Amino acid sequence: MSLDLLLQHLRQTAALEQVAGLISWDQETMMPSKGAAERVEQSGVLAEFLHGRHSDPKIMEWIGGLDTESLGEFDLGNVREAKRRYERATRIPAELARECARAASHGQITWTEATRAHDFSQFAPALKRNVELKRQVAAHLTASDGDLYDSLLEEFEPGAISRDLHPLLESLRPRLVALREKIDAKPAAAVLSGHFAPSAQLDLARTTATVLGYDFEAGRLDQSAHPFSSGTVHDARITTRVDAADFQYCLFSTIHEAGHAMYTQGQPDAFLPAGEYCSMGVHESQSRFWENQIGRSRPFCEWLFPHLKKAFPQIDIKGADALYAIVNRVENGYIRTEADEVHYNLHILLRYELERELILGNLEVDQIEEAWNSLFLRDFGREVPDPGMGVLQDVHWSAGLFGYFPTYSIGNIYAACIDQAMRRDLPDRDDLVRSGTNAAILEWLRDRIHGKGRLLRAPKLIEEATGQPPSNRPLLDYLDNKFGELYDL
Amino acid sequence: MSLDLLLQHLRQTAALEQVAGLISWDQETMMPSKGAAERVEQSGVLAEFLHGRHSDPKIMEWIGGLDTESLGEFDLGNVREAKRRYERATRIPAELARECARAASHGQITWTEATRAHDFSQFAPALKRNVELKRQVAAHLTASDGDLYDSLLEEFEPGAISRDLHPLLESLRPRLVALREKIDAKPAAAVLSGHFAPSAQLDLARTTATVLGYDFEAGRLDQSAHPFSSGTVHDARITTRVDAADFQYCLFSTIHEAGHAMYTQGQPDAFLPAGEYCSMGVHESQSRFWENQIGRSRPFCEWLFPHLKKAFPQIDIKGADALYAIVNRVENGYIRTEADEVHYNLHILLRYELERELILGNLEVDQIEEAWNSLFLRDFGREVPDPGMGVLQDVHWSAGLFGYFPTYSIGNIYAACIDQAMRRDLPDRDDLVRSGTNAAILEWLRDRIHGKGRLLRAPKLIEEATGQPPSNRPLLDYLDNKFGELYDL
Repeated sequence: MSLDLLLQHLRQTAALEQVAGLISWDQETMMPSKGAAERVEQSGVLAEFLHGRHSDPKIMEWIGGLDTESLGEFDLGNVREAKRRYERATRIPAELARECARAASHGQITWTEATRAHDFSQFAPALKRNVELKRQVAAHLTASDGDLYDSLLEEFEPGAISRDLHPLLESLRPRLVALREKIDAKPAAAVLSGHFAPSAQLDLARTTATVLGYDFEAGRLDQSAHPFSSGTVHDARITTRVDAADFQYCLFSTIHEAGHAMYTQGQPDAFLPAGEYCSMGVHESQSRFWENQIGRSRPFCEWLFPHLKKAFPQIDIKGADALYAIVNRVENGYIRTEADEVHYNLHILLRYELERELILGNLEVDQIEEAWNSLFLRDFGREVPDPGMGVLQDVHWSAGLFGYFPTYSIGNIYAACIDQAMRRDLPDRDDLVRSGTNAAILEWLRDRIHGKGRLLRAPKLIEEATGQPPSNRPLLDYLDNKFGELYDL
Repeated sequence: MSLDLLLQHLRQTAALEQVAGLISWDQETMMPSKGAAERVEQSGVLAEFLHGRHSDPKIMEWIGGLDTESLGEFDLGNVREAKRRYERATRIPAELARECARAASHGQITWTEATRAHDFSQFAPALKRNVELKRQVAAHLTASDGDLYDSLLEEFEPGAISRDLHPLLESLRPRLVALREKIDAKPAAAVLSGHFAPSAQLDLARTTATVLGYDFEAGRLDQSAHPFSSGTVHDARITTRVDAADFQYCLFSTIHEAGHAMYTQGQPDAFLPAGEYCSMGVHESQSRFWENQIGRSRPFCEWLFPHLKKAFPQIDIKGADALYAIVNRVENGYIRTEADEVHYNLHILLRYELERELILGNLEVDQIEEAWNSLFLRDFGREVPDPGMGVLQDVHWSAGLFGYFPTYSIGNIYAACIDQAMRRDLPDRDDLVRSGTNAAILEWLRDRIHGKGRLLRAPKLIEEATGQPPSNRPLLDYLDNKFGELYDL
């Protein structure tokens, strides 16, 4: 009886969360410009209701009334998640939660203006406020012997702690820097320019997502300023952005978001927390696996080449090998979202190092521009010419998102672990990809990752899926091999 | 204090209602096919929350604590509406409300199947169940001296009662039948056929809606199986359907829905009930006014003709007069949604007569097919060859919507009252329409109808707007004059 009541409460909460996600999708894709103020009200009311539901004292009464011995694995997962959310929701005073929402909203507006003006000092007060509030949130969430940063990380990567994460991430740096330096010394790869009709780009994106296994009957592809994926098992939507001068952006962002959405489409239950995605890191492993290990592989370029030629007959690429070189062009740039596989994690490590120090109180907001620039020089070997190409480039901190950045690198690390294990299990994978028959690949992910929902914590999930505890070796080896061959190192 | 709490409650409820409207819009326009089952859950949870909010006992406590003497007109309107909704929500037992929702959902499925099979008997049991439940609902809502049908009508047309409505509607019939018979005796007008490219139809629909005054920055136009409008003041969306063989459907359904949406865009408050639309009849008066009194007028055809020629250069229409004849072609048909202005209200009167008898218990579901056919013969002078062209054609009764049909005719009656008064106030209206400068027309409606929200009951609103109590004379005169001239009667 307690279980039924708890599950009903959780299902209704999930339905409301789905509704909140849907109106947020609508805001980015469909909403007319004047609708913004009404949408803020609508989202605010839903958020307040959701907070009330997550922190409803009845949750703990129902859980207290359970005979946990009699529960199966799935319901134990639901109970654990309900408890975890209840504790996080009730430990933060309501006024502080509201203050964070306001500061995040104001921070994003200020950030947009400061970015336009290329002036960090305009943004500094809003960033200070967000850091200060998130430090307060962390203090409420952290046990006396705990780590403030871990409490924020927990929001995105349940169960992760810096003690495990720090060595995993930090030890990426030396080999990544060494690889970057070797490539920097080589001649730059060719750039492809031209005009690529937007409608043909979208058609190619749709064809590609379908071939990879994204189910358009349980999703859709639209355009938005920044690509994203959202939704539920049977309605997992993706967006992309089309740049008429560059066919790669639309194509690879679609593959990336389809990777996220195929994970969603494979979740075991749309309405219960144990059926949800495991963590943001695992989510990112799915998008990055399809984008990089599949989408930027040589066999995929062999599949893609004739489709690309058909979509853009004027394109000046000789064959699949030339295409493979183009989609894997390495460039030491300033911007994370434009980074290649070699540089991407160096961008993340830099942000992780800085945000951790901010939250621990070892670095002040006034020092961060200088700190950013000096770390960038250390890792990328170049001076930052402008804060727009440095500390101002990401929206995350302006919205109070601290503890999110590492999940990108966790995702890259897991994607490579998955890639290595899958190659062992599917020795003919290259042939499958080359011929556009990716069902066995998706099935492997469904069985070992998607279908497991949130039953296990991420490292355990990856260990059971791949047969080995996660490590950064597969990623570093993959990068060395791939780019060693491409750049003749 | 009581007022603040009440208004906050009402605002939050309105925001949730808007969200429910938005996910329903999404369902009809954007949702992938497999998303249906999850959407049912999401809508169900929102509906249950909304019912809980409308029937929250705190509403009556807050109202009890008010010093109503000190309230302004707008807040008195909010209090009246909150009370009205509270009473309707609490008088119906929760189990009966749920049973109605189930029967409506099942009824629509059964109706779809029976319609496909052209077999009323397949649908009869589900219709019986809906009638039976709605009679129970009406009994809960009706005072001892009240009329069961009025209690259902009240949902859509607040304050309307059969004693006033019945003569207004019933006295339409003789003159409408007489007009129909005179036109039937004349040669049929020409039919226009051809192929009209869907994208050009949609472009023309957008141009037209913009010229009439629909604000696309606070709305959007999409396609759906059945055209509808929905949304809020700053996000009032419309849909249409495109038939490549008939340019009129997309164009006039867009004008109709834009009429609804311009009303929404002109409402005085998006979040409080006194700021809402007055009644479904008034809503329909806005759509029909723009569709018929403007859209099917000769001056509008003069504006439209060059735009139509530009969109479809191959079109075989000699000029604005010929276009005027085509868009006002009268045909004695079986289907309400395809009916011209002469026949439309005869369709409504027939349904009104039957549904009233069903709810009062004077007619059984088993008798209704025969009753329909005999009324159709009486009013339209023709036998119904097939239930698909008769009693099975509308979805309303299958969804338990009794008391809705009359609001269509109320809307037509009000539209003609508005037309008559506006012609007096804006003597150059024809010139304005001819030149595509309709701002003064929209402003007239904004001032006298849209901006008044739900402060007055519909007949009073129309009386204040037009200077005369509503009557069906303007409609009957308008039809006699217009079609008398067109058909040389």
